[in-house]
Parts: sequence; structure tokens; C-alpha cells
Amino acid sequence: MAKKYVYLFGKGMTDGNASMKELLGGKGANLAEMANLGLPVPAGFTITTECCVDYFNNGMKEPAELADQIPAALAKVEKAMGMKYGDPENPLLVSCRSGARSSMPGMMETVLNVGLSTATIPGMIRRTNNERFVYDAYRRLIMMYSDVVMEKAEGIEPADGKGIRKMLDAMLDEYKRRKGYKSDPELQVNDLKLLCRAFKEKIKEVLGTEFPDDARAQMNGAIGAVFKSWNGKKAVSYRRIEGIPDDWGTACNVQSMVFGNMGDTSATGVAFTRNPATGDNKFYGEWLVNAQGEDVVAGTRTPNPLNEETKNEQNKYLPSMQSMLPDTYRQLYDIRNKLEAHYHDMLDIEFTIQETKLYMLQCRVGKRTGTASLNMAMDMLEEGMISEKDAVLRMSPQQLDELLHPILAPDSEKAAASADRLIAKGLPADPGGAVGKIVFTSEDAVRCRAQKIPCILVREETNPEDVEGMRAATGILTARGGMTSHAALVCRGWGKCCIVGAGTLVIDEIARTVKTDKGVKFVEGDFLSLNGTKGYVYADKVETMDASENPRFQKFMGLVDKFRKLGVRANADTPEDAQQARSFGAEGIGLFRTEHMFYGKGSEKPLFALRQMILSSTQEERKQAVDKLFKYVKASIKGTMKAMAGLPVTIRFLDPPLHEFIPHTRDQQLELSRSIGISHAEFLRRAEALKENNPMMGHRGVRLGVTYPEVTAMQARAILEAAAELRKEDGIQCMPEMMIPVTCDVNEIRNQKKIIAEIAKEVAAKFKQSELEYKVGTMIEIPRAAILAGQMASEAEFFSFGTNDLTQMTFGFSRDDIGSFLSDYLRKDILSADPFQTIDVNGVGWLIQHAVTEGRKARKGLKIGICGEQGGDPKSVEFCHKAGLSYVSCSPFRVPIARLASAQAAINCEK
Amino acid sequence: MAKKYVYLFGKGMTDGNASMKELLGGKGANLAEMANLGLPVPAGFTITTECCVDYFNNGMKEPAELADQIPAALAKVEKAMGMKYGDPENPLLVSCRSGARSSMPGMMETVLNVGLSTATIPGMIRRTNNERFVYDAYRRLIMMYSDVVMEKAEGIEPADGKGIRKMLDAMLDEYKRRKGYKSDPELQVNDLKLLCRAFKEKIKEVLGTEFPDDARAQMNGAIGAVFKSWNGKKAVSYRRIEGIPDDWGTACNVQSMVFGNMGDTSATGVAFTRNPATGDNKFYGEWLVNAQGEDVVAGTRTPNPLNEETKNEQNKYLPSMQSMLPDTYRQLYDIRNKLEAHYHDMLDIEFTIQETKLYMLQCRVGKRTGTASLNMAMDMLEEGMISEKDAVLRMSPQQLDELLHPILAPDSEKAAASADRLIAKGLPADPGGAVGKIVFTSEDAVRCRAQKIPCILVREETNPEDVEGMRAATGILTARGGMTSHAALVCRGWGKCCIVGAGTLVIDEIARTVKTDKGVKFVEGDFLSLNGTKGYVYADKVETMDASENPRFQKFMGLVDKFRKLGVRANADTPEDAQQARSFGAEGIGLFRTEHMFYGKGSEKPLFALRQMILSSTQEERKQAVDKLFKYVKASIKGTMKAMAGLPVTIRFLDPPLHEFIPHTRDQQLELSRSIGISHAEFLRRAEALKENNPMMGHRGVRLGVTYPEVTAMQARAILEAAAELRKEDGIQCMPEMMIPVTCDVNEIRNQKKIIAEIAKEVAAKFKQSELEYKVGTMIEIPRAAILAGQMASEAEFFSFGTNDLTQMTFGFSRDDIGSFLSDYLRKDILSADPFQTIDVNGVGWLIQHAVTEGRKARKGLKIGICGEQGGDPKSVEFCHKAGLSYVSCSPFRVPIARLASAQAAINCEK
Repeated sequence: MAKKYVYLFGKGMTDGNASMKELLGGKGANLAEMANLGLPVPAGFTITTECCVDYFNNGMKEPAELADQIPAALAKVEKAMGMKYGDPENPLLVSCRSGARSSMPGMMETVLNVGLSTATIPGMIRRTNNERFVYDAYRRLIMMYSDVVMEKAEGIEPADGKGIRKMLDAMLDEYKRRKGYKSDPELQVNDLKLLCRAFKEKIKEVLGTEFPDDARAQMNGAIGAVFKSWNGKKAVSYRRIEGIPDDWGTACNVQSMVFGNMGDTSATGVAFTRNPATGDNKFYGEWLVNAQGEDVVAGTRTPNPLNEETKNEQNKYLPSMQSMLPDTYRQLYDIRNKLEAHYHDMLDIEFTIQETKLYMLQCRVGKRTGTASLNMAMDMLEEGMISEKDAVLRMSPQQLDELLHPILAPDSEKAAASADRLIAKGLPADPGGAVGKIVFTSEDAVRCRAQKIPCILVREETNPEDVEGMRAATGILTARGGMTSHAALVCRGWGKCCIVGAGTLVIDEIARTVKTDKGVKFVEGDFLSLNGTKGYVYADKVETMDASENPRFQKFMGLVDKFRKLGVRANADTPEDAQQARSFGAEGIGLFRTEHMFYGKGSEKPLFALRQMILSSTQEERKQAVDKLFKYVKASIKGTMKAMAGLPVTIRFLDPPLHEFIPHTRDQQLELSRSIGISHAEFLRRAEALKENNPMMGHRGVRLGVTYPEVTAMQARAILEAAAELRKEDGIQCMPEMMIPVTCDVNEIRNQKKIIAEIAKEVAAKFKQSELEYKVGTMIEIPRAAILAGQMASEAEFFSFGTNDLTQMTFGFSRDDIGSFLSDYLRKDILSADPFQTIDVNGVGWLIQHAVTEGRKARKGLKIGICGEQGGDPKSVEFCHKAGLSYVSCSPFRVPIARLASAQAAINCEK
Repeated sequence: MAKKYVYLFGKGMTDGNASMKELLGGKGANLAEMANLGLPVPAGFTITTECCVDYFNNGMKEPAELADQIPAALAKVEKAMGMKYGDPENPLLVSCRSGARSSMPGMMETVLNVGLSTATIPGMIRRTNNERFVYDAYRRLIMMYSDVVMEKAEGIEPADGKGIRKMLDAMLDEYKRRKGYKSDPELQVNDLKLLCRAFKEKIKEVLGTEFPDDARAQMNGAIGAVFKSWNGKKAVSYRRIEGIPDDWGTACNVQSMVFGNMGDTSATGVAFTRNPATGDNKFYGEWLVNAQGEDVVAGTRTPNPLNEETKNEQNKYLPSMQSMLPDTYRQLYDIRNKLEAHYHDMLDIEFTIQETKLYMLQCRVGKRTGTASLNMAMDMLEEGMISEKDAVLRMSPQQLDELLHPILAPDSEKAAASADRLIAKGLPADPGGAVGKIVFTSEDAVRCRAQKIPCILVREETNPEDVEGMRAATGILTARGGMTSHAALVCRGWGKCCIVGAGTLVIDEIARTVKTDKGVKFVEGDFLSLNGTKGYVYADKVETMDASENPRFQKFMGLVDKFRKLGVRANADTPEDAQQARSFGAEGIGLFRTEHMFYGKGSEKPLFALRQMILSSTQEERKQAVDKLFKYVKASIKGTMKAMAGLPVTIRFLDPPLHEFIPHTRDQQLELSRSIGISHAEFLRRAEALKENNPMMGHRGVRLGVTYPEVTAMQARAILEAAAELRKEDGIQCMPEMMIPVTCDVNEIRNQKKIIAEIAKEVAAKFKQSELEYKVGTMIEIPRAAILAGQMASEAEFFSFGTNDLTQMTFGFSRDDIGSFLSDYLRKDILSADPFQTIDVNGVGWLIQHAVTEGRKARKGLKIGICGEQGGDPKSVEFCHKAGLSYVSCSPFRVPIARLASAQAAINCEK
């Protein structure tokens, strides 16, 4: 059977509907839906996305079926409109517009006024009684068609961008200059006729072919050009970024032309059924009298407000449509209500008024800010327009994220970018926006903070000594380091805006200057603005937006939790972080890292003891250092467990990057040597011995616990004593979960459990508490541990996937070193996403699924979490839900996002 | 039903046989077998290994069944021997000896003369008519029993080793000193009586218990002590090293005592049915008149030769058994023949002659050198004693290895060790032995070579500039570096003795001294001896043995190939290596690494071009460097393919450790900067940018090929032009296999194949050869590639497992950095073997098996090899055979070993 490639829309003859987006594209499906609703849609037809795909597979030839299907559809359209395409008497003109499944604004092509030719011009003039209008339309067709169909679609556009369109524009300008005209409306009919003729000659000269004077040839050319624009440069790179598959194809909508530029009773406009910035339930939009759609978009005229209640500073003196065309406005307002009631959502619509008659040209679900999204969801829920589940699905995790961070105001950022103020790009280590004065030292940052001056701490790299300054700064910018660098890790914990690895910047910390690769120099005190979500650095100030605390946020999150199945915990390393996480709704700590105690304020003493421990070479030396560390570790764990009273706290055993903690200054080295009682030379020898070629795969995690059992024992004691004390002092029953990192074999867990069990006996005796409650589990972050998860689960009482390391080992990618090739991998389509941002479902995900299955086979109901960075990534949360995990754990600021993503995954999976 | 724990052996009453080693232990099973053969075995019984296991599981109590089974067995033994255990009139004495499944020489305990007591002494004296003999036996019993049963088995042996045995020895010495005796035989009956009494008092005083005077109590104690010795310290650590499971347990053999020390017609001896050092088919052994077994082993008397034909320099003046006891010798000789005919192997036997009557006390398959093993296998095959398959199984891969390398002579090495000349231990990077004068520079090594002076090149670490010296040296010793260090890799390719990472040595290359951790200093010109198989470094000369070229070797290898199923290829990087590999029987090159061109003689120019390539920052710069590299790469590949004419050659695409190739001297840096046309500062900046935190997981392998397609293109062109030229010039049809390293996704292969296909078109046109034959495959060395092997195989035409990297990523172990914890992991029983030596079957092996299955599902008959270090490891070869691989590839010197291991795996799997 022949494929049906063509679907009609229009009063009483519509084939499609809104659910057919895959086949008809978003625009086509919604045109059909509006027609079905009885709205005034100019008749037309949609050629399917499937046809586009077949067109490409067919060596860019139209499938044979079209030869019958288009004329048949066109005949019905002609009948509906009472005009005939290509007819000299009563000619119909059409537009040919692209429309993919997923909106790709401005990325593909459109041709208007198709069907105007020497044969149809006279009839058109008769019909409109407006010769100038017709020749202006013809001029527009020639300019658009020659560019889109005759040059771009043929692939002959010159690389320098100086194509036919530029030439014709130049001719037009030259003509106006000669005539002394200032604007297009001054062009008279004869001017336009002369120009049209000159344009056609130029086209023949430059492109070597005639401008087609046949209506059917014009339409075929326009349809082909729309299809071809799917594989245009802009469209392809947009798809890369948005992750849209190449094989979707675009539909082509051929629709009867209506004109908003036929005089003062004609107009065109765009509107949102509610305010897309705030969510206010007010009809909001802009319109222009005697104009075409492109005039609204072009921004050369200030558009009028739609109604009285949404007037603003810019347009308050301009008449609204409500006042000028009250009947048409009322009709439009009814349509607005009808559409919202039908779609149960806020819509973005386009309309044209041709000689007082209203036509709907487009409708789609409207984009909105995070705040608007929240307000609309809650309003519509209260209005009974949507269900609770729908309300939960209405806000994207990205929008929620917006609500949680101040961000650079989009308009201001756009302005900065077009003013060439984008001076560098780095890795987006922690999202949000930050604006402040450049400082180069931690001390200066602290000083600024004291004076309430926002500042950006700019460093080659940060290190533990910078932590106070990092906390004081508004944002952090480093020239080196990757997504797991010190700066990135620390900032992520705080939700502080941070860009790392902006390698093109040359930072001179002595001279206190930053130089860009274009040689522009910034000095201390100059302003910089950071977009931590994208990793963009701007010169000077960009305005920020603070998505203010919305009282509906808590209510919304309550809804979210109603549908969520996956638990959400936080990665938190201090009592303060834990408190914060709890306030964001964390149901426990999924990852407490003792290491963070060695950074920042008050870290001097524990850091010193840690350094002693690291540099010990005998068990005796090490025991002494470990004993000193004990009280700090206990205090930190105790505070955190207290903050999380009643909730589980998972404490990862020490996994410090040994060599990073070795002091670099001579004074510090000497002090440390003295304290251990060794010479400086011996100190240096030991420090050298700690160097590793690949520290990521070196002497770390449980490997330390195996070689230095006293380190494990100290931690077990700190955890268990902290728990025992809290029980005794505050009556708090703690639920510590001891997590052994970097395991690859069940015997490692056995080995560590034996040590812990002995300590538990001692602590139980000391506190006269008969049964200490605790669990021992393991990270699954080494491929072998995932492979042998069944064995691991025979000893581990819980699992937590460390997806950072698991991804590193599974891919053989060092996260710190992928900068040199990852962008090529994405650009060349080898990987579809950065696996450190979103779980690689095929590889890493396969291992996780395998480990979940095998682990639960060996231990029924095994509690399984994830505590890598991806724990807060929505797509990854969805994967975790499907894989049957018990909970995800992420940084405190991402807890709400994880809660939302998890609820959405649960709702979507039910469907 | 009650378990049968006790098995009899002796004339006409034997329960067991040689096949029951698991239950009866090696000694017990062979005693039973000899009894079955009608040989004169003193009657006795074996208590099973199962009983030992149950004994431990039972809280070290004898299982109840023994209470009946031992007396019943003992009654039959008594009947057979015509004596009664514990009987005052005609007492039977017994020995209680351990005997595990697998021989653990000297690791467990034995008690002799069990059953002597105040009650049985008189009867024993009457029976032997030799009071002194009886009291001497009693003295021996007391000394042995108090030590083994009363102290060691009770776990009360003092940690300083100064236990009861030392005390009794001291008493004996003191007694002899007081009496003026020089040796034990001077002790008279009364002396012995006094001593026995004093010993028993001392035992009571020190251990707090009486020496047991009851025969049954003595036997029970001795049996328990034998069982307990299975978990003695020595035995446990021996099992660790040999990989013997802890749950096997030992059997206990209770056997009637016979005495070789009852006068001049009594004797004891040990023998091999053939010469264990050479394999000569001559009965070979030693014996002593009027002695017990321990006297032969102790070495205080020079033992006599067994027969005339095997006399040597040391014993040629001593009478042989053949001459002194011709009848007994003949009887023993017959037994020798009977045993060989029965066991079809060379045996190691122990015998005792009690008053001219011959008794067999032990027989087991004898240990032998590599040479002996080869000769015996081929002799026995020719004699029709064994089948071809058996001959193949007779030689262990380790023995074959011995044949291929000169080694330190075992006796000389032992002597050096006991003379405290073992000065350091390092990593055994490449096996064999080397002896030579210390040199510290490559130049000196070359100079020594010219003068034919063997030398050991001693370096902190080696680098590419040392390669000439390394080739010239007899052996290499470094203080730093791991099993993949430069020195290790280079030497392994050559089969040159090498020890790396001997970290206790302090090497001063300026002062030209080596200092040990005990402060002993060696200077240039001093001799060192290396055991590269163990990683031991000795002071001064140790003798070496050259397992001379044996003409039977080729014949044996022919047999091997007859049964082998797995292909064997070599990892070779030069035409010379390839030639060598081919002479060792390689059936192709499984891994050709272009990188090796950049080391050693003649490497200056290609190395310079490589450096230019690495430091290029634009495609233009890189293209120039790559073009310069082209001719070197082509020449090297062409030579190798020519050497392997008719056989496949797998060429791995470049995977150079970028930062390692950056020159370190200022002059070299300047030269290179000038050649690229950049400043020195820019040079340093680029070099800095190449540094990676974890280079093992950095910008390497196919990642380079993706970011720099011109590098892939150059290699494809080099390979294809080399093949085309060989075809044109020499009519050689090459079979190049291009192997893409470090892949993790099928899209990487697609990307590279596209580049290669384009080059293939160009080369085909250039040489007017229509169809170029080549294959494109991939290494599987990243876990994700193994997981997604099905996808990989859709593009890859062959797989080769890179088990070095695969093991690194699967375990998260950096091979260079495991030194700090691997020994703990082995010692604490967390891992049973170094996974870089032998494939980790559970983890890495699981991935390999998964990849083989999925790969072959996607591409039928997919050719799959392995080219990691383990390709030459016998256990790993066995795994590869079972996993269904097509071939293994290893260094040229290990090709024969892999061939043997592969044949043995095939034969063993048939069974």
C-alpha cells in the first residue's frame, strides 16, 4: 500500500491531531488540533517527517507517492479557501514551513508567498485591489526563494556568507539610496517592479538559473528546501547540543497565506496564554498593525500591547488590541481560553488578522522560566485544570535548579555576549551566576566579604589553604583543574558558582592580572561575571536574577514526594551541610567524607595529624598520628549524626589523595619532620615514595585500610563512640552505615569487617551498651566489584555506586584529563553525552544493573544507593529509578532536583 | 553410616591405592600402591585428610569414629607384623607422619618410635637384644615428642624459639661435655638412661605435664600433633606461596617402625629411578650403613653411592650398595624397574634395610630439572613407556622456561644465600640468571661488551637513551620502576635477565656506588649476580647453568604442536624480534608496536619527528611531523611483514605515552622548539599542557586517532604501502591486521575505519592493486569495550584482549603503583595471586568470557586473541583455551612456553 505522506488541516477536513507530533511535527500536529477545535486556521496540509526521512534515503528525490498526494490535498485546500493555486484569476498563495517533532526555533527554513508568478500577479492584484502590496510580496518571495531554495538548498552558498541574499539586499539599499528613500514603505509600485526585474536578472547571472515562474515548480522547490534544511549546518549543530536524533526528519507545512499587512484592519501578533516570565494568569502578548510576522520578530517597531492589564513601561502609550479591535480581541481571548482548557497548559500562539478576520497560524506549549513554571503548575492544579501528577511533571529539573540559584539575567547576558564581552570558556563546575570584583588571594576575598563587596576569586588552581577565601567569594574561577578538582568539589558542596579549567586565561597571581587569549588584560578590582551553568566568563558586570523564595515551592515539593519512590539523600561532610541538606528534604546522608575536615577553617590541627599519618613509615608512628586524628573525626561525625538524628548517615572510610596533602613550603615541611622526629631529607624521601603514576588507581580507599588496619580501627571507633555518646547524652539512636571505598574483592570487606567487629566489642564494653547498631557496606566503584556483586553482597550490608570512579574505570577516562579529547568525542558523535554528567546507560548502566541483580540475588532486599555526581542529574535519577535502586545521594543543593526527577521518573514509568 | 577414616596398607590387606591422593595424601596413597604391588612395605594405616578437616571443624577433637577404627586397624597391623603395640613382650613401635595431597616437604611434623614406654622397653630390649639401641630410640622419642606433641601442637612454643627442644639439646651437650664425649655414639646405655630420666623431669618442670608413658596416649598425641601441624606457621605460609588451599588438610600415616641403625647389616637410603639433574636412565641414589633416614638428610656423613656407574668425585672412594649388599641391591633394582613400569615415570624412593631385610618407606614422582624432564619424557616415549600426550604433559612450562634461559646454579645460589650474600630483593621483571661487573652508564656497558666482560647495568631507572647499554649488558638492575617500567618492558622483549624496583638499594650514579640497606657499599667493577626469576640480587659471583641447546627440544615441540588447539603468536616490534619469534614457532605477530621504533639505536630521527608531532598544536604543524614519521613507520612495518611472510601481522596503532617522550635537556628542547618554529617558552607551555594526572586513563590510544585523524591516516598509509610494495617487489602477499587500541565504543572504530578506507582507496590507486587485503580490529582493554563487545564486533573484524590494561581498569589497580599494597593483599589472603601475572578468572576472566560470547554472537567465527603479558603465562593460556580464544600472543622468548601450555590445556580439557 502506498504510504500516506500528506495530511490535511482546515475546517471540516483535518486528518491529524495533536498526538501525531512524531509524524506531523509539532507545528503540523497543532495546526490540525486547532482546526479540529474549530479555530480559524487557514487551510493547508502537512507533508510528514517520514516523507523527509524517505526523501533523504532516496537520494533527495521526492517519493513517487507525492506526485498524487500533493495535488489531491491541494485541491481540497483550494476548495476550502475558494481560490486556486496557480490560477490567473483567483490565485491561492501558500507558505512552506518546516516543523520538527521537537521545536528547533529558527534552525530550519521557511518560504512565504509561494505561488506568485507573472501568471498569477494580475489575478492577485485584482483580488487584493492593491498592486503595491502584490509587488512587495513578489519582491519578498524572490529574495527569500533565491536564498533558501536556489542557493542554500543546492549547497552552493559561498563559505564567506556573501550569498545571493546579501547581493539583493545591497541592490535594494543602493536603489533606495539613489532614490533618497529612508525606508521600505517609501518604495512605489514602479520601484518594486524595477527591483523585481533586476533581482531576477541578478539571480540568473549569479546562480545560472532562472527564477521559476511556474507555481508548481515553486512549490516543489520550496518543499525540497524545507526538507534539506533539516541537514543544514545550523540545524545539525543545534541537534548535537539538544541531543535530537538525526533520523527524526522534519515535516513541511504547506498552508494558505493570509496577510497581516493589508492595511489598518490587518495585523499580526504573538501571545502567551499566561505570563511566561512570572506565571501570572494574564493573557500576555504583542501585536502590530499592518505588518507581517517577521516584523514583530525583527524588533524594528515597538509592538503594541495585547490588552490593558499587561501594559508595561515600554509600551504603555501604545494602544492595545483590546482597545483598537475589541471584537477581534474578544474572539482571540475566547480562543485563548479554549486552547488552555483543551491543552491544560500555557500556550504560545501566533495569529494574523487579515482585514479584521482572525487566523490562527501556530500554537504550542510555551517556554517559561522556573518561577513561571512553578506558579503555573500550582495555579492550574488549584484551578482543577491539571492533576497532581501533571503538576509534578510540569516543572523540569532544570527549571527547579533555576529557582535554587541566582543566575545571570538572560537578556543582560545576551547583551554582554553580543558586545564581545565573553572572554573565556571553562568547565561548568557549579551552576548559577556570580558577579564581582577580581581578587587573587584568599585573604582579599575574606576582606571583600567583610566589606560586603562581592568578589570573584581568580586562581591558577585552588588548594586547601584557599577554602576560607572560596567561602567568602561570590564565585570562583580557575585556569586549571577539571570537574573533580579541588575548586569544583568544594564549590559543588556549597552550591557556589564556579568555573574551572578556563585554560585560555593566563593568570599572574604575583602581578595580579588576568590576560585573555586575545591579549585583553584585567587587574584586581575589575568586574567579572560568571555563568557557572555554562562555564562562560564575561568582562564587567552582567545583571543577575534572584529567583526569589517562592512560598509555593514547599507545597510543590510536597506533591513531588507524594509520587516519588526512590529515596533521596545528600552528600554532606559537615554538620552545617547536613543541616542544609535536611532543610532541602534529604532523607539521610548518603556520603559523608571525613576528608573534608582537612579543608578550610579549623582544619590546621586535623590536617597536621593527617599529614603525620600519611608520612609515617612505621606502625608505631602511624598509631600516634591516628590517635591524634581520632577526636577530630569523632567530633565531625558526631555533629553530623546529631544533625541527622533519626535518619541514616553513611560514612565513607578515609580515601584521601595522599600526595595532595603533603605540605609544599619548607617551613611546613620542617615542622612536620620535627613532629615525626625525622630529618628533612628523610621527609622528602618519604614524600617522594608517595608519588604515584596514576593516583586514581593507586594506594587508596580500602587498600589503605588493609595495609594500615589502625586507620580503619580509628574510624570505626570514632563512629561507634560518637553514636554511643549521642545515645547516652541525647537519647539519639543513630544509624551509622560504614562504607568501605574502592573495593574490588569480597575479601577486602571481610578483612575490614573483622577489624570493625573487634572495635565494636570494645566500644560496647566501654559504654555498657549491649548491641551497637551499625551496618558495614561498600562502594561499588570498581568494575570488578560490580561484576562480582553477588560475592560482595555476601558480606556487604549495603551498596552505594560511586559512579564517578565507576565511569572512570569503565571507560578508562581520567576525569581530570578528558579535556583534551572529550569535546572531539561529542563533536564527532562518538559519544552522545559526557558520561560524567549523565550515566552511560549502555556501559556503566549495564554494570550497575548487573550489580543490582546479582547483589539482591545474594542478599534479599539489599539497600542500594548511588553517591556519585550523577545522583543529582535528572536523566541519571530516572535510570536509578528504573534500575531499582533504593536511593540517590547528591549535593545538598541538588536534593530538590533529585526529588523532582525521581517523582517524574516514577510517574513516567507508570504510564 | 559412619565415615571411613582409616585405610590399611601392608601385604594382603591394603584398602587404598595411588589414585586416592586426595583422601590419603600423597605418601599414604603411594604406600598403599606399593603394598598392592607386593613391595615390602612395613604395615600401617593412613588416617584420612577428611578426618583432619573434620578434626579442625570439630574444635580439634578426634571424630568419634576413630575410637573404633584405629584399634581395629592396629590389630591387623599387629597381626601382619607379628608384634603388638604396647605389648611388654613383643612391642610394635610406629611412626606418625604427615602427608598432604601435594608435597609440602619439611613443613609438617613427624614423630618416630611411638610406643616406647617403661612398659615396652624391656620387651624391646629382648627383641632387639640391643639395650643401647632401645634407650637411644627412647631418648629420640622423648626429644621429638616433647617438642612436637607437648609443646608445638599445644601452641605453647615460646616466640623466641627457645623451646623444650633447645633445652634438651643443651642438656645433652652439657652431659657430653662433662663426660668428655665428642659424638653421640660414645654415649653408653647408662648415659642414655640418665639422660632419659633427666629429660622427663625437665619436661615436667617446664611444660607442667608428664611425658606420657602409655602407648595409646602417645599415639593419640602424635596423631593430633600431625593434624595440628597442618595449621602450623611454616605450613600456612608455604601454602600461601604455593597456592595450596587451606581446606585440604593432611593425612596422618601410622606405620610400623623399621630400623636402619641396628648394626652393619642395617642401612637407609634415598634414590631416584633416573638421574633427576640430567635425566640419564641410570638408577641414582645415596645410602648409609647403620643409620636412620634423618642421618642421610642431615649431611653430617658423606653418603655412599648406590652403584658403581653413578659414582662421582665426592664419593668415588666409598663402597657402593651394589658392591656391599649385592643381593639387597638387586632386590632394590628390581623394585626400581617395577615401580617405573607401574608409574610410567621417574620416582623418588626411600628405603630402609633392617638386618639385611629391605623395606620401602616412600615413593613418589621425583622432582627434576628442565633438562632432565625433557630427556626423560623423550626417553620414556621412545621406550614405549608413555604416550605422546603423556610426554607433552611431562614437562612443566616452568621447566621449559629453564631450558630457554641461563639460570643461577641452584647449589651455588643456595650457598650465596646462606653466606648472607643476598643483598636486595626487587621485582622479577625478566627471568633467568645474570652475573657480571657493575657498570653505571650505558656507555660503560657498551665498552664492557666490546671487551667481552659480562656486566650488570645498575641504574636508578632506565630511559630510552639507555637502550644500547641495556642490550650490551648481561643483566639490568634498577632501584625504581615497576613491571611495566621501561627497563622491564625492554628486557622482556629480549628475554634478558632484569630486576627492577629494588627499592632498598641506594644508587649513586655520580659517585658510582650502590649501597644496601645494611650499609654495604659496592663500587663499579664489583661483581653482582641476579636471579631474574625471583628478583634476588646477590653480592659477588654465583655460578650459572646454561641449559644447553638440546637436540630433543625441537622434537618435543613438534609433539606439542600436534595437540595444541590455540594459535600462538608473538609480540614483536622489529624485524629482528619477528625473526626470532618465528624461529621459536610463532604463527604470526599478535602485537607489533610502532612505539619501539623510538627507543634504541637509530631512533634519533623518528624520535625527533615523534616529538615534533606530540608538540604540534595545529593540524598543519602536526601534518608536517607526521609526514616525516611516515617513512620510518613504513620501513619498520615492511621489515617485520617481510620477516613474517605468509603469516598475519597485527599492527597496533600508535599509543605512545606522550609526556614520556618530551625531551628533558635544554639543548634538546631548544632544537625541537626551533624545528617547530616556536619559542622555548611556548615549548614549555605545550609540554606542561601534555601533563596528565592519570596518564593511564588519559589522551591515548584511539583517542589520539580521533582527535588527530592525520596520525591514523599516516599509519594506515604506511601499513598499506608497505604491503603493496612487498607484493610488488617480492610477490609477498601480506596479511596486515590493523588494531585500534584503547577503544571503549563502537563509534571509535567506525570513525577510524572511515579514515583507513579512504587511505586504502588512495593506495590501491597508487599501486594499481585492485583489492588491498587488510583487516581492522580492536584491542579489548577497557571494561566498557568488553561489556559492549557485541557492538564492538559489529565493526571490528578481530579482537585482541589487552589484559594488562583490562586488569588495571577492572581492578582499578595501576600496575606501576601496586607495590605499596599488593604484597599485603597476598599476605592477608585478599587476593590469591598477582592478577598481572595470571589472569584473574573471576573478574577479568568473566569480562573476557562475556566479550567472547557476545563478540561471536555478533560476528560468527570472530578471531580473538590476547596480547597482554599473561599471553605467556601457563595458567592464563589454559584459561584462554577454555574461553575459546583463537590465539595467544606473547614475547618471543615465551612462545615455546605458550605452545606447551596450550597443548597441555588441550590435553587436560579432553580428559
